[in-house]
Amino acid sequence: MKIDFTHAKKWNTCSEEERKKLEEIKEKMNQKQEMLDWLDVETCIEEEEKKKISLLASEIRNQADVFVVIGIGGSYLGSRAVIEALQPYFQKNKPEILFAGNHLSSSYLKELLMYLEGKSVYVNVISKSGGTLEPSIAFEKIYKYMKEHFSDYEKRIIVTTDKEEGKLRKFATENHLETLTVPRQIGGRYSVLSPVGLFPIAVAGIDFLSLLTGANFNRNCFDEAAQYALVRKHLEEDGYTIEANTIYEEKLSSFAAWAQQLFAETQGKEGKGILPIVNENTTNLHSIGQYLQEGTKNVFETVWKIEETEDLTLENYDLSMNELNHLVLEKVMEAHESGNTPSILFTLSELSPMEIGKWIYFEEMAAAIGGYLLDVNPFNQPGVEAYKKLVNQELKKHKKSE
Amino acid sequence: MKIDFTHAKKWNTCSEEERKKLEEIKEKMNQKQEMLDWLDVETCIEEEEKKKISLLASEIRNQADVFVVIGIGGSYLGSRAVIEALQPYFQKNKPEILFAGNHLSSSYLKELLMYLEGKSVYVNVISKSGGTLEPSIAFEKIYKYMKEHFSDYEKRIIVTTDKEEGKLRKFATENHLETLTVPRQIGGRYSVLSPVGLFPIAVAGIDFLSLLTGANFNRNCFDEAAQYALVRKHLEEDGYTIEANTIYEEKLSSFAAWAQQLFAETQGKEGKGILPIVNENTTNLHSIGQYLQEGTKNVFETVWKIEETEDLTLENYDLSMNELNHLVLEKVMEAHESGNTPSILFTLSELSPMEIGKWIYFEEMAAAIGGYLLDVNPFNQPGVEAYKKLVNQELKKHKKSE
Repeated sequence: MKIDFTHAKKWNTCSEEERKKLEEIKEKMNQKQEMLDWLDVETCIEEEEKKKISLLASEIRNQADVFVVIGIGGSYLGSRAVIEALQPYFQKNKPEILFAGNHLSSSYLKELLMYLEGKSVYVNVISKSGGTLEPSIAFEKIYKYMKEHFSDYEKRIIVTTDKEEGKLRKFATENHLETLTVPRQIGGRYSVLSPVGLFPIAVAGIDFLSLLTGANFNRNCFDEAAQYALVRKHLEEDGYTIEANTIYEEKLSSFAAWAQQLFAETQGKEGKGILPIVNENTTNLHSIGQYLQEGTKNVFETVWKIEETEDLTLENYDLSMNELNHLVLEKVMEAHESGNTPSILFTLSELSPMEIGKWIYFEEMAAAIGGYLLDVNPFNQPGVEAYKKLVNQELKKHKKSE
Repeated sequence: MKIDFTHAKKWNTCSEEERKKLEEIKEKMNQKQEMLDWLDVETCIEEEEKKKISLLASEIRNQADVFVVIGIGGSYLGSRAVIEALQPYFQKNKPEILFAGNHLSSSYLKELLMYLEGKSVYVNVISKSGGTLEPSIAFEKIYKYMKEHFSDYEKRIIVTTDKEEGKLRKFATENHLETLTVPRQIGGRYSVLSPVGLFPIAVAGIDFLSLLTGANFNRNCFDEAAQYALVRKHLEEDGYTIEANTIYEEKLSSFAAWAQQLFAETQGKEGKGILPIVNENTTNLHSIGQYLQEGTKNVFETVWKIEETEDLTLENYDLSMNELNHLVLEKVMEAHESGNTPSILFTLSELSPMEIGKWIYFEEMAAAIGGYLLDVNPFNQPGVEAYKKLVNQELKKHKKSE
């Protein structure tokens, strides 16, 4: 994993004051205050849970046609990101992995229930408390379906939740369901390397231990992540309030959506922060590319390049198709720079669990440092809680008496 | 189709000067200057082409397992948007519709070619000139595949291109391929109701004539579209430079991407314009929702509500799931307004070809008027052309001698 600020040189600075502030941040993070357990990859997941995940995943891979992951926000964005980045575009392995409880579309849920008919189904419901609206509703319907269709439904439903507390833990205990643990000191958007993310990833047949090895490899990336956080901060100060997470490989689109949540929830508060967006290229060069080149000057790009990939030769050029994709990537960064749209370039050697693990850890580190640099709490999400509270208040009026 | 500015009241004004300017714009558009043929739905497509589309589509629906649409930007975003919005989430009809040539991923194209093995394949390649890089490369590979695998490959490849000019027209003539016409006076991003978009839509089994009827129904929507364009302009003037096209039904995500291109390419030039982004709710309420509620104040939302949809009853509430989705939509608009994030609300009665047709026409009208209001040419895309030129120059160095 390499990072290159060539096309954002002007913002790649560090004042004496900033250097001091970064020292303080480093010190604060080393003290492992609240919600920083993700910093130490070893504490993200216990040895026993690793074994349980391997065992359960192998059983499900043998038995299931469909594996339904129920969760929203940090409870599913990380696993979906890793699974899509590491699976082929076509010819996906069994079981098919589907997501539910990540919105309130009734037609989606209704059709999903019909689609499950006649298939061997396993379910993983993920929620720290069990109180979040969207997954609760999806789980209500899917649990009913499982109970009606499988005599062994108890072993087909795996609940990922708090070790002791909350509605969902209570439900799992009362109904004899298999469970995995959401660590207390890791927030949803930092939880992909805990059982929250690792279990669906394992069911997809991905070597989740290599993911952890990759993350651990980057445990000393503070300085490099801080540099990225600083460049972002300087860009924000100059009016660049949108970060286009720009990919040249479509299957990274969910990864960009994961990073979008990570940075938006970590930094977008108290009237501050950059809005991260997902930008698929070369697709979008024929869409918002026009705006990036010549529109309002409020966007910078963070470009993600994958060095090696399955490749094709071309009849008319002395380049392979992947080389051509990279040539376009370089030329577009140059063109955008000349149009005052700066770019930061990340290069991964390949799409593998190791490289993805490194990348996840780096992004989490940069998001947290960026939050501290803005003097906001990187680990809360008061705006999301406000929405949840508002909706729950309203829903009380519509609750049937029990 | 209804539009509601309640949550963006402050910007819903029209000065005397603006009224005059809109009169001028209306007059200019009535004169049907260049690139305005889409204004008259009747001129988007000739009667003969309608018949050809019906005939070809019905043959393909009988014969094909897979239908590959090759195109980028305006050549595929419109058809993909309509197809995804009107097809079910699961249990899709035959043929499976796949897209290619919309980026430069070699692993995608390689895997696609492997996926086609053993299936009955039909292809539609769409390009006005045939000179665009991404579809050219995909077509090179897929044409070779078709020639090698099907003795009747000539009738399995349908070329949508200019009536007389360009590389692709020449190629189609020389190789006896079936053709459809890209109208000259309609730009890519305004072409979904021409053969460009209608043919893949027909192959998906969607009643494309109803789509045209819907569009035609809205032919007098100038005043309402102008009002939307004005509110957007006032918001931009107040620093709201990002428009979140917010959906509460996941299958509208490609529709939001179509609108994104339409507005970004039409208005994002000369240092002006709003950046449209795709915002899937309630999914993103647990992601960028935090930023929208409490982050930098530069985003407004255009919310798309679908009144009727397939529905489910809920055990614990006296609301159906769709009613719950709408309740959240309303509450979030209120919460965002209190956090200084204004919203504009569009309501469609249902997802049907008629309603989608009306909506397409309205969006095209609003985008064009918005361009005129900014004093930019709504129908060019100099930034995209600049990128194409730059890459083509570079590619000349890598061209093999013929």
